[in-house]
Amino acid sequence: MGTTSERPHRVEVFDTTLRDGLQVEGVSATVEDKLRIAEQLDLLGVHYIEGGWPGANPKDIEFFARAGSELRLGTSTLVAFGSTRRPRGKVDDDATLRNLVEAATAAVCIVAKSSDYHVTEALQTTLDEGEAMIAESVRFLTGEGRQVLVDMEHFFDGYAANPEFSLRAIEAAVINGASHVVLCDTNGGSLPHQIEEIVGAVVHHLGGDVVVGIHCHDDTGCAVANSMAAIRAGARHVQGTLNGLGERTGNANLSTIIPNLQLKLGHPCLPDGRIASLTAVSHHVAELLNRAVNPQAPYVGSSAFAHKAGLHTSAIARAKDAYEHVRPEQVGNGTRFVVSEMAGRATIQMKAAELGLEMDGPAVNSVVDDLKRLEHEGYHFEAADASLELLMRRATGWTQEFFRVESMRVITDELPNGEFTTEATAKVWVGDDRHVHTAEGNGPVNAIDTALRMALADAYPQLSRVHLTDFKVRILDGASATGAVTRVLLDATDGERDWTTIGVSANIIEASWRALEESLVYGLLHGLPG
Amino acid sequence: MGTTSERPHRVEVFDTTLRDGLQVEGVSATVEDKLRIAEQLDLLGVHYIEGGWPGANPKDIEFFARAGSELRLGTSTLVAFGSTRRPRGKVDDDATLRNLVEAATAAVCIVAKSSDYHVTEALQTTLDEGEAMIAESVRFLTGEGRQVLVDMEHFFDGYAANPEFSLRAIEAAVINGASHVVLCDTNGGSLPHQIEEIVGAVVHHLGGDVVVGIHCHDDTGCAVANSMAAIRAGARHVQGTLNGLGERTGNANLSTIIPNLQLKLGHPCLPDGRIASLTAVSHHVAELLNRAVNPQAPYVGSSAFAHKAGLHTSAIARAKDAYEHVRPEQVGNGTRFVVSEMAGRATIQMKAAELGLEMDGPAVNSVVDDLKRLEHEGYHFEAADASLELLMRRATGWTQEFFRVESMRVITDELPNGEFTTEATAKVWVGDDRHVHTAEGNGPVNAIDTALRMALADAYPQLSRVHLTDFKVRILDGASATGAVTRVLLDATDGERDWTTIGVSANIIEASWRALEESLVYGLLHGLPG
Repeated sequence: MGTTSERPHRVEVFDTTLRDGLQVEGVSATVEDKLRIAEQLDLLGVHYIEGGWPGANPKDIEFFARAGSELRLGTSTLVAFGSTRRPRGKVDDDATLRNLVEAATAAVCIVAKSSDYHVTEALQTTLDEGEAMIAESVRFLTGEGRQVLVDMEHFFDGYAANPEFSLRAIEAAVINGASHVVLCDTNGGSLPHQIEEIVGAVVHHLGGDVVVGIHCHDDTGCAVANSMAAIRAGARHVQGTLNGLGERTGNANLSTIIPNLQLKLGHPCLPDGRIASLTAVSHHVAELLNRAVNPQAPYVGSSAFAHKAGLHTSAIARAKDAYEHVRPEQVGNGTRFVVSEMAGRATIQMKAAELGLEMDGPAVNSVVDDLKRLEHEGYHFEAADASLELLMRRATGWTQEFFRVESMRVITDELPNGEFTTEATAKVWVGDDRHVHTAEGNGPVNAIDTALRMALADAYPQLSRVHLTDFKVRILDGASATGAVTRVLLDATDGERDWTTIGVSANIIEASWRALEESLVYGLLHGLPG
Repeated sequence: MGTTSERPHRVEVFDTTLRDGLQVEGVSATVEDKLRIAEQLDLLGVHYIEGGWPGANPKDIEFFARAGSELRLGTSTLVAFGSTRRPRGKVDDDATLRNLVEAATAAVCIVAKSSDYHVTEALQTTLDEGEAMIAESVRFLTGEGRQVLVDMEHFFDGYAANPEFSLRAIEAAVINGASHVVLCDTNGGSLPHQIEEIVGAVVHHLGGDVVVGIHCHDDTGCAVANSMAAIRAGARHVQGTLNGLGERTGNANLSTIIPNLQLKLGHPCLPDGRIASLTAVSHHVAELLNRAVNPQAPYVGSSAFAHKAGLHTSAIARAKDAYEHVRPEQVGNGTRFVVSEMAGRATIQMKAAELGLEMDGPAVNSVVDDLKRLEHEGYHFEAADASLELLMRRATGWTQEFFRVESMRVITDELPNGEFTTEATAKVWVGDDRHVHTAEGNGPVNAIDTALRMALADAYPQLSRVHLTDFKVRILDGASATGAVTRVLLDATDGERDWTTIGVSANIIEASWRALEESLVYGLLHGLPG
C-alpha cells in the first residue's frame, strides 16, 4: 500500500529534548538530570543529542563541561546549539559563537534566519547581511573543526513568501561547509502536503550534496505527519523530542516517528535491536523530568495497547492483530486488558487466569458487581493492579490475617512561629499482640506511614524491603473543592516487583491510609518470608 | 502554498465523544454528563452528535430516552450507534437493530465489516453473508425512516488486502439507501499517504452519489493528518472527538481538525461564528468528563499560545505572527506570556504592565530572584496567577493587612469502628481582634478551610462570595513517596473573576494552608467591599 522508493533510505534521528524540549511549560531539569537523559538517549541509539544552548543558559555551559568529562556515549554525537553571529557583528568577537566553540562538542547546530521577513523585520537588517551572517558563521565553525548543522528558522513560511532568499540562505550554509540544512517549521503552522511540496523542491534543488533535515512543531497536530512527509520527499534527518516535549504544543514526537518510519515504512533509524527499548527510554526520560508520559501516546503510552470495550476484548482474544497495528513488544510495550466497570465477566476471567487465581462463577459476578459499585465511588482499578488483585482474592473468600488496625490518629499543628509539626499514632494487632507506635513525619501521610511500619516492624521485619516509590493524589469532582473526594494511588516496590494500590475518601488521610494498608498487605502476601 | 480545488468543499463534523470517546481509559460519564456534553457540542455547532450505543449499554438507552424529551438541539442531529444484524440472523428480530430504532433518533450510524478477513475470521461467515448483513440492515433502517450512516470497519486494511470485497460492502450500503459511507481506520495503523490514496480511489469509484466520510484513530500519531488527507482526497464528512478522547491513543481530535480545515484550508465546517467557542467548549466538555485538556493540545490547550523562552517573548513583542500560526482569538484562546525561572526582566515587566502594577528596576530584579528560588523549591507560578500577583505586589513593598494567623491545628482520628473524624482550629487576628474557631470537616483541608473562613466571617462577610472551585494536588519527586514535596493548587472564584493560588511543602496540610490563605487574601484584595 502506498508508494515509496524501492529501498527506504536511512533516517538520522536528532533529539533536542535537552534544548527545545525543555522549553515546555512546567518542566525544568538540573544538570544532573540532563546527563542522565543523555545517557538514556544514547542507550536508545539516536544519532545526535542536542544538549543545550551554552550561550543562553549558564546551566548549559556546566552541562557541556561535565558532559565532556563524565559522559561516555556509545552511539550518539553530542551537539551544542547556538545561533549565527549578530547582525553587523564579527564572528571573532561573537559571544554566542565563542560559547559554542568552548562547549567542545564534535558537532554544533546553529539557528539561522531563512525567511526574508524575519531578516528585515526581526533582525532589522538587509538580506545580504542575513546571508553573510550564515556564511561567515558556518565558515568560522567549520574552521574550528566542528561539524555544522544549520537550523533554517521559519523556513516554510519564508519559502512560501520568498523562495529565492530562503534558497540563498541554504546555499550560504552549504557552500561554507555545513553538513546539514534542517528546514524548520518554527511556528508549527504547516500541513503535510505543504511540507512535502517544499522539502521536495529543496532536495531537488540541492541534488544530494548535503543532508536535508526536518524540524517540526505540533501546532496543527501534524508534527509527526509533517516530519514523515518531509522524509517521503527526501529528507534524511529528523529532529524532535522524545514524548513530544517542547514549547506550546510541543516538538515532533520521536517516540512516534521512529516506529512509524522503522516499523511501518522500513526506513532504518536506530541501531539494530534498539527500538525495543523505546517504551522504557521514553518513560525513563519522562520520569527524570517529573512528567508522566501521556497514557494515550502512540506506541509508548500505557493505553496505547490497552483494550477496554467488551466487544474488542473478546475479538482480540481471537485475533490480536485486529486491534493492534503493530506488535507492542516491538517497541517494548505490551497488550493490556483493562478492568473497569465496563468489564464483563470475560475480562475478569482473563485477569484471574493472568493472576493464577481460581474463580468460580459467583466469585466472578461478585467482582463485577464490586467494581461497578467502587468505581462509582471513585475507585479506579485500571491503575491499581494490587488493589484489584486483593479485591479479586477477597471474592474467593480470602481475608488478610497479617494485622488488624485498632485505631489511628494524626495531629498537625501550625505553631505561632509559622512552623508545622505532625505526629501520628497507630494501634495495631498482630495475632494476639497489640503494637502501639507514635511517629513524627514531615506531613500527615509520612507520619502515618512511619507509625504503621514501626508498629509492624517486630512481627514483619521483611517490610523493611518494601519502599513506596510514588504517591499520587487526584481530587475527583474538584468542583466540590476541599470537600471533594480524594483518590490516592501508592506505588511500591520490594526491589523485585512493583505494585500500585488505591484509596478513595473525602478525607485524604483516610484515602492514604487505605492505600497504605493495602500496599503493605500486598507486600506481605507476595514477599519473601521474614 | 499547496494545492486545493478552487473552492474548498464543506466538511460535515460528526462527534463521537459520547460513544467512541468514552472508551478512553479512566473516563466514565453519567447520563446527566452526557446530556450536558451534547448541549455543548450543539453550541459548537457540529453536524452530528453520536450519543451512544443503546444496544450495548443500558445507560445509553436511558440517554436517548431523556434526550428525546429534554434535549433541545439547535444545530446538531443526534445519532444512535449500532451494528448490522447478526450473521445468519434476521433483521426483524435483531435486538441491536430494534434498540437502534427505539432510540428514536432521526439518524443512525451502524458499523459494518468491510474487510474480508474480519468477515471470514471474526464473524466466521461467508463474504456473501457479510454483504447481505449490510444490505438488509441498511434497508431495514431506511425503511424505518431513518437516515443511515455506515461505519466501514477496518476499511483501510481490508481494502489493501481485498479491495473488491471492501467496495462490495460499500455498494451494499449505498444501493440500499445509506446517506454516508464512513471509512474507518479501526486499528489506527494507517499513514496519511495511504489514506489519501485509498479515499481517492473510493471517491472516484462512487462518483458523488453518497457522502464519503473518514474515521481515524491516533495509533500512528497521524489521526489529524489522516483525516485531513481524506478530506483532500474528497471525503466530505469527518468523525472524531473533542480533545481526541478515545480508546488506546484516542480518536481523531476534532478540536484540531476543525480549525485546521476551516482556518487554514478554507473548508467551511461549523456555522458562522461558532469556531470562536472552540476553546471554551473543549474545556467544558473535558471538565464534564473530569479530565483536563492536555495543555499542549493544538489551538485549545493552555500552552498552545504560551511563550516561555526569553528569545521568543521579546521577538513576539515585536511581531506576534512570528510565533503564532493563527490568531489565538479565532478559536477563543489567547496569547500567554509564561513567567518562570527562565523569565527575564522583560517578561516580568510585561506581566506588571498586564496587571497595572508600577514596578521599578530593583523590584523587577527581586521578583526574578524570588521566582528562581521558589521554583527551585517546587513552586510553579505559571499555573498560579494570583500567587504570582501577590508575589509581585510584595516586591513593591505591599503586605497584606487583612488578617494574621496565630496558629492552626488539625486532628484526624480513625476510630476503632473504622470511621474517620477530622477537626481543625484556627486562631487569627483581624486588627486587634482575636478570632478562634474550631470546625469539623470531611478531611483535613476541608476542616481548615471551614475553620479559617468562620474565624474571618465577622470581619469579612464578603468572603461568603468566594468559592473554591478546584483543588489539585501534585506530588513532586514522587520517588520520595510519602516524604515527598507536595504542591497544592487552589482555584477560586467570586462569581466575577477566577484565580489560582499555590502552596508547596513536604506537609500537604501546610501546602494547602498556604494556598488557602493566599486565595482568601486575593479575594479580599480584588473583591467588592463587604
